Amino acid sequence: MIELIGFDGDDTLWHNERIFSFTQDRFRALIEKYVSASDLDARLLVTETKNLKHFGYGVKGFILSMIETAVEVSEARIHARDIMTIIDFGREMLTHPVELIEGVEPVVRALRGRYRLMIVTKGDLFDQESKIARSGLAESFDAIEIVSEKNPDTYRRLLSKHNVAPERFLMLGNSIKSDVLPVLAIGARALHVPYPLLWGHEKVDLEAGTTIEALPAIVKLPDWLASH
Amino acid sequence: MIELIGFDGDDTLWHNERIFSFTQDRFRALIEKYVSASDLDARLLVTETKNLKHFGYGVKGFILSMIETAVEVSEARIHARDIMTIIDFGREMLTHPVELIEGVEPVVRALRGRYRLMIVTKGDLFDQESKIARSGLAESFDAIEIVSEKNPDTYRRLLSKHNVAPERFLMLGNSIKSDVLPVLAIGARALHVPYPLLWGHEKVDLEAGTTIEALPAIVKLPDWLASH
Repeated sequence: MIELIGFDGDDTLWHNERIFSFTQDRFRALIEKYVSASDLDARLLVTETKNLKHFGYGVKGFILSMIETAVEVSEARIHARDIMTIIDFGREMLTHPVELIEGVEPVVRALRGRYRLMIVTKGDLFDQESKIARSGLAESFDAIEIVSEKNPDTYRRLLSKHNVAPERFLMLGNSIKSDVLPVLAIGARALHVPYPLLWGHEKVDLEAGTTIEALPAIVKLPDWLASH
Repeated sequence: MIELIGFDGDDTLWHNERIFSFTQDRFRALIEKYVSASDLDARLLVTETKNLKHFGYGVKGFILSMIETAVEVSEARIHARDIMTIIDFGREMLTHPVELIEGVEPVVRALRGRYRLMIVTKGDLFDQESKIARSGLAESFDAIEIVSEKNPDTYRRLLSKHNVAPERFLMLGNSIKSDVLPVLAIGARALHVPYPLLWGHEKVDLEAGTTIEALPAIVKLPDWLASH
């Protein structure tokens, strides 16, 4: 029997990747003045991935990676004013309204009091706290955990902290790599709730024989719980 | 009687501001090619303070504020290659060795087991976790708390979480604004341990009549505890 349900934040409770995607479109339009880089998205992802170990996840690291990619692909011809525009893109991302995914509010209302509910979100502390506050969801959850990485140790530490056995924990999220596989690895349950967009770094190749249980939409969660 | 002792991280347990200060010297040297801005430090602080509400504390926000200041003071004449140099300054800051402040190791050894010891550090989650890991101190502390802001509510929440009454909590830190005043405000005790450098944003004007207790160096803490 499930006692504690963990929800990923970005692209599980609220829309996120589409803000990055929209910004990347603006970034591409800005760079086109200098160079026609058909592989711009791929080069940006390479820079982002290289910088992860220094910058971690989040908008600030993304802005720095956009600037670095812009300097590189333009062969340092990019004008300082356009660098400022990239920083402004970032500031707009950080103040973008937090839009809940359809079904989140009724599902949380339906489950509240019957299960302990926890947000488990990865990324920049300041940025995530701000998004949780703006989401209006903070009061509906029993715990909010902002972590720098989602690996088996992270989930083990959280379950120990909240005193829940793995078999009584269910995690939901849009990233198989971060929300599903490390949860299954510690013997807990996880449901993959797909989102139409997925950041390149979160893509994962499944080993043959790995079975992932998917929930087509978060609104189906009460039914799933009733039948398990 | 004190039961839980909180230690600030940056410039209380390990050196930090001097890495910023050194980087600011390099930044000044880089900008001098374009403009002799005698007020460069002041202008950078204005940009940093303006950006705090978007970027929070930490190195990534500092890099973005340096870039923004560089574009502004150079009237957008700064070359893209110099922008890359600023990003490289930031990457070097993030990988700089963590150097403990003199006396930290023996003091922690002396107090461990006799008090519960907690790190309370403000800033970027990824950056602070990395510094704590590199400091080698993680195993010596009973709790590590990384927070986005240090205000009375933050300390109230931490004491409630760790189940300690305010009168049994002592906080130590180099910032009167972040480590002392909000702690006194909730009825707990705090000692100011000065560090030779203080970031402009942490400077505070004390109201007349406010008394702050100072400890000249962290190495004096066991004596202070013995006499209280």
